[in-house]
Amino acid sequence: MTTQTQDKKTAAVPETSTAIDLAYKPLPGSEKIYRAGTVHPGLKVPFRRIHLAPTITENKKTLPNAPLDVYDTSGPYTDPATRIDIHAGLALLRKPWIRQRGDVQELPHFTSSYQQQRQANPRLTAIRFPEERKPWRAKSGRNVTQMHYARLGMITPEMEFIAVREGMDAELVCSEVARGRAIIPANINHPESEPMVIGRNFLVKINANIGNSAVSSGIAQEVEKMTWAIRWGGDTVMDLSTGPNIHETREWILRNSPVPIGTVPIYQALEKVDGKAEELTWELYRDTLIEQAEQGVDYFTVHAGVRLRYVPLTAKRKTGIVSRGGSIMAKWCLAHHKESFLYTHFEDICEILKQYDVSFSLGDGLRPGSIADANDAAQFAELETLGELTQIAWKHDVQTMIEGPGHVPMHLIKENMDKQLKICHEAPFYTLGPLTTDIAPGYDHITSAIGAAMIGWFGTAMLCYVTPKEHLGLPDKQDVKDGIIAYKIAAHAADIAKGHPGAQQWDDALSQARFEFRWRDQFHLALDPETAEKYHDQTLPAEGAKLAHFCSMCGPNFCSMKITQEVREFAEKQGLSEEEAVKRGLQEKAEEFQKSGKEIYLPAE
Amino acid sequence: MTTQTQDKKTAAVPETSTAIDLAYKPLPGSEKIYRAGTVHPGLKVPFRRIHLAPTITENKKTLPNAPLDVYDTSGPYTDPATRIDIHAGLALLRKPWIRQRGDVQELPHFTSSYQQQRQANPRLTAIRFPEERKPWRAKSGRNVTQMHYARLGMITPEMEFIAVREGMDAELVCSEVARGRAIIPANINHPESEPMVIGRNFLVKINANIGNSAVSSGIAQEVEKMTWAIRWGGDTVMDLSTGPNIHETREWILRNSPVPIGTVPIYQALEKVDGKAEELTWELYRDTLIEQAEQGVDYFTVHAGVRLRYVPLTAKRKTGIVSRGGSIMAKWCLAHHKESFLYTHFEDICEILKQYDVSFSLGDGLRPGSIADANDAAQFAELETLGELTQIAWKHDVQTMIEGPGHVPMHLIKENMDKQLKICHEAPFYTLGPLTTDIAPGYDHITSAIGAAMIGWFGTAMLCYVTPKEHLGLPDKQDVKDGIIAYKIAAHAADIAKGHPGAQQWDDALSQARFEFRWRDQFHLALDPETAEKYHDQTLPAEGAKLAHFCSMCGPNFCSMKITQEVREFAEKQGLSEEEAVKRGLQEKAEEFQKSGKEIYLPAE
Repeated sequence: MTTQTQDKKTAAVPETSTAIDLAYKPLPGSEKIYRAGTVHPGLKVPFRRIHLAPTITENKKTLPNAPLDVYDTSGPYTDPATRIDIHAGLALLRKPWIRQRGDVQELPHFTSSYQQQRQANPRLTAIRFPEERKPWRAKSGRNVTQMHYARLGMITPEMEFIAVREGMDAELVCSEVARGRAIIPANINHPESEPMVIGRNFLVKINANIGNSAVSSGIAQEVEKMTWAIRWGGDTVMDLSTGPNIHETREWILRNSPVPIGTVPIYQALEKVDGKAEELTWELYRDTLIEQAEQGVDYFTVHAGVRLRYVPLTAKRKTGIVSRGGSIMAKWCLAHHKESFLYTHFEDICEILKQYDVSFSLGDGLRPGSIADANDAAQFAELETLGELTQIAWKHDVQTMIEGPGHVPMHLIKENMDKQLKICHEAPFYTLGPLTTDIAPGYDHITSAIGAAMIGWFGTAMLCYVTPKEHLGLPDKQDVKDGIIAYKIAAHAADIAKGHPGAQQWDDALSQARFEFRWRDQFHLALDPETAEKYHDQTLPAEGAKLAHFCSMCGPNFCSMKITQEVREFAEKQGLSEEEAVKRGLQEKAEEFQKSGKEIYLPAE
Repeated sequence: MTTQTQDKKTAAVPETSTAIDLAYKPLPGSEKIYRAGTVHPGLKVPFRRIHLAPTITENKKTLPNAPLDVYDTSGPYTDPATRIDIHAGLALLRKPWIRQRGDVQELPHFTSSYQQQRQANPRLTAIRFPEERKPWRAKSGRNVTQMHYARLGMITPEMEFIAVREGMDAELVCSEVARGRAIIPANINHPESEPMVIGRNFLVKINANIGNSAVSSGIAQEVEKMTWAIRWGGDTVMDLSTGPNIHETREWILRNSPVPIGTVPIYQALEKVDGKAEELTWELYRDTLIEQAEQGVDYFTVHAGVRLRYVPLTAKRKTGIVSRGGSIMAKWCLAHHKESFLYTHFEDICEILKQYDVSFSLGDGLRPGSIADANDAAQFAELETLGELTQIAWKHDVQTMIEGPGHVPMHLIKENMDKQLKICHEAPFYTLGPLTTDIAPGYDHITSAIGAAMIGWFGTAMLCYVTPKEHLGLPDKQDVKDGIIAYKIAAHAADIAKGHPGAQQWDDALSQARFEFRWRDQFHLALDPETAEKYHDQTLPAEGAKLAHFCSMCGPNFCSMKITQEVREFAEKQGLSEEEAVKRGLQEKAEEFQKSGKEIYLPAE
């Protein structure tokens, strides 16, 4: 590897994979396991299995507890049986599935002229991903989207993989995708990805944004952030880079990502015209779409709903247009006094996307950037257009989700969800937060987790995370983790409130462990086992305290959990069923209780 | 000061106030100001005034921005004009008001036998608060509660102080207190306190818990935690100490606290019987109530709703009884097979409370401790009893609020609020969280901020904070701050959603500053100015960046805020009103725009 990088400082790629921290172990107490499919028995669907200690009863009986298997986004990075080498990329899990369908062709070379130009540039050798593979595309006249297959009634391996992951029927996955109520972002050029679904009848998903900008970060850090984000539960990752070497950064991320990768192609297009929005053209944008589709990007944010006539609706706002993509297109529309090429060429975009199975994420370029601007005319006008575009995309069997706000006070959140479902024909909603107040920069992962949990409950399918650095700076690793955990909380709280089958099992397992003072199990069952254990140990660091039947909050003689346990153990010691105890009367029990050492007894209802 | 402390390690009191960090300065960019009353013109009602920089327009015009005055809980600690000496305590703000009403007497000595015994113990001299003052109590046959005054139509200085603080009419404060929909926790023996109100037609309040346990913390740390908690916005503080020297710790806290202090008297009563719940007696508890009432505790959590017949309802729960007070009383009830003395002596308790104006916080001893146990028969059975007790308390003009859960999934939160309002006759609700999932120990400030924001919106008057250490250990200073900020977010999000007049002004001021790139103002307007500035500086540390019209997220040429601003400045430069611009037509504007340097122009709607 030479050192002729364009910008050595920001674009450095590690010499070996050990230079950055990718060699993750499984989370504490957890093991990577795989389950098979039935329609496609060869499937290896990953889960994080959390092993639990047995329950020890008063009389020293040992009752085993079944392990809990939970959804696992972390990919091969937490499987000690897999050798990770980011210079080689991940195994091509979906390659045989894609090939077997017989509807794709390997192209002799990349179609995008920009891609060809980058590839021919010797100065980029040092930062380029080593393996040069050939892109795939649909054979002429074929449509390779999961929606297309679903509408033909095919249960693809992707769909069954998802069904096993979600604990749902594969038929449900298929029918939800067919009617557009769910999407499976799965570009044929990203065969490394483990299939996942975004739709409101499945687990609520979260997206983590990464990406460098002109003032910060490089390739190695972005790859590391991606693997870090999925370790903690990121279901998809958006690469929002706006700085140098966007193309090469993305290649490294894609080749090493087991989760779908999303982008906002207009960002890169704008870089190609040196930031001059009015110089953007359809041809340039089209080349960018193809460039990214052939790299393997799984979904594109496209701000095609920013129509010329909506732009004036933002003039009286407190914070104008806050979407980067939205402001770029607004500037273009006004400069040319024309509808944007995203809108006028929307069917052309569909034609491209269906050849690679790139999903639409229809951007909300006019989303509110403050509580004051929530649910205004501009926002809802754009939503109407997104509804129209959804139907056009569906005509082409192109999978589509809809992006949503932003900044919304609690009492206006439900209106967003209800309107989106109605106007966009139940296409999955993908929201950023929303933030429920503007006054807490530094804590916007919390201001927005509140809104995210609520809108997730109301029906949003995927929540785009917000980190503590929102509005202030670029997130570092700790910020990424803090954002992810806050959003896993929001998503899981929404799953419980929606009544997702099985969601509450996780809470019940943890609560049971808590009640039985199985401290290690409590840590292992936590969304973040490391932090839970660290916090516990700050007050009671001794190993013995992890077996203690009390904790530092109340001390040994003051524990309500302990008192309730004593009750049940007393009942057990007497060899009485709870029903019998009730029959024999409370008075009698109270006397027995007094005689037998004054430990509490709770008969059943 | 001698060194003969009972437990030197945990009970150490600083030699001087500089030994712990109490000499706080105002928050950055803020100044302590005071406003006067009208009925009582001598009032000095504190606010935090946030000074704002002027708006600089494109053509360098300077438009001043009015400062924003926000509610301030921090007391004299943020007023540089006040000399703080924790060995002397705070000034007795309310003393003249209490005296002028002519209904209190100074007692020759403390009434509680326990208090007398502690006072006579020479081994406690070193840890005792230096000044020995005399307690006050209502004159015989008089009732000194704010509810009593309110029902007589008196607008007390306390009520007007609150009206100025809240930006409401004093008549509203009076009528809300009279009908029991709001309380003013204001023990006549805590004249240091700045009056505040808890009621759903006012700003949502938050409580911070502090307190040592058998395994951690001492007096000095608890006083420091109290001042720290109110610096960040704690409206009341509960001292939940269960360790040694509870009495002396509480005295130091009360004498230095400008916010109401709450306790759970049964905790101390249990300490007095060495943790043996069944040995608790009404007489011992009564003495504890008087001891604490004469020290100045402003509200008591009393678990009088745990009735004998409800205890069996908890036997089949996932996590039994998780309230410490609830489990103590359940144990007592079953051991004696009798209704608890809290229930049978409830009117006696009212007789005590009304002589000092201690408010009830009727404890939810059977609150759920896990998602699985939410909204069950035990919880709602207890709530019915709390409703009955509320009416008994009101018969005595004793101010009353009701405690609520705990752990509740989002879809069951509203039911809690609706039932509480109905069953408890609109007495203020005071909830712990609720946590919306059990799977995130280490992040329960977030799992619960979601529930807290929602229940605050639905009508809860005060939110008891939860720190990141919940379920794991005792909070340190950073945890206290993290818990407070999460709950200030929840409370403020609720205020906005409820439509509290003026709540959104704060958001609007911050959003305006954000839009105009007034970075310093953004920091100063943040709930936590220090963290906001620190996070910003991690990416762009230079002083110049705080004046920059961009930030590290998008870089200088990629900023949507900047683009929208260019639009408006273009309009201004042309000397056109937005309406005129619309009249002259979009086409014409587009041409002008192209000619004049291609900066965007957004006409108004």
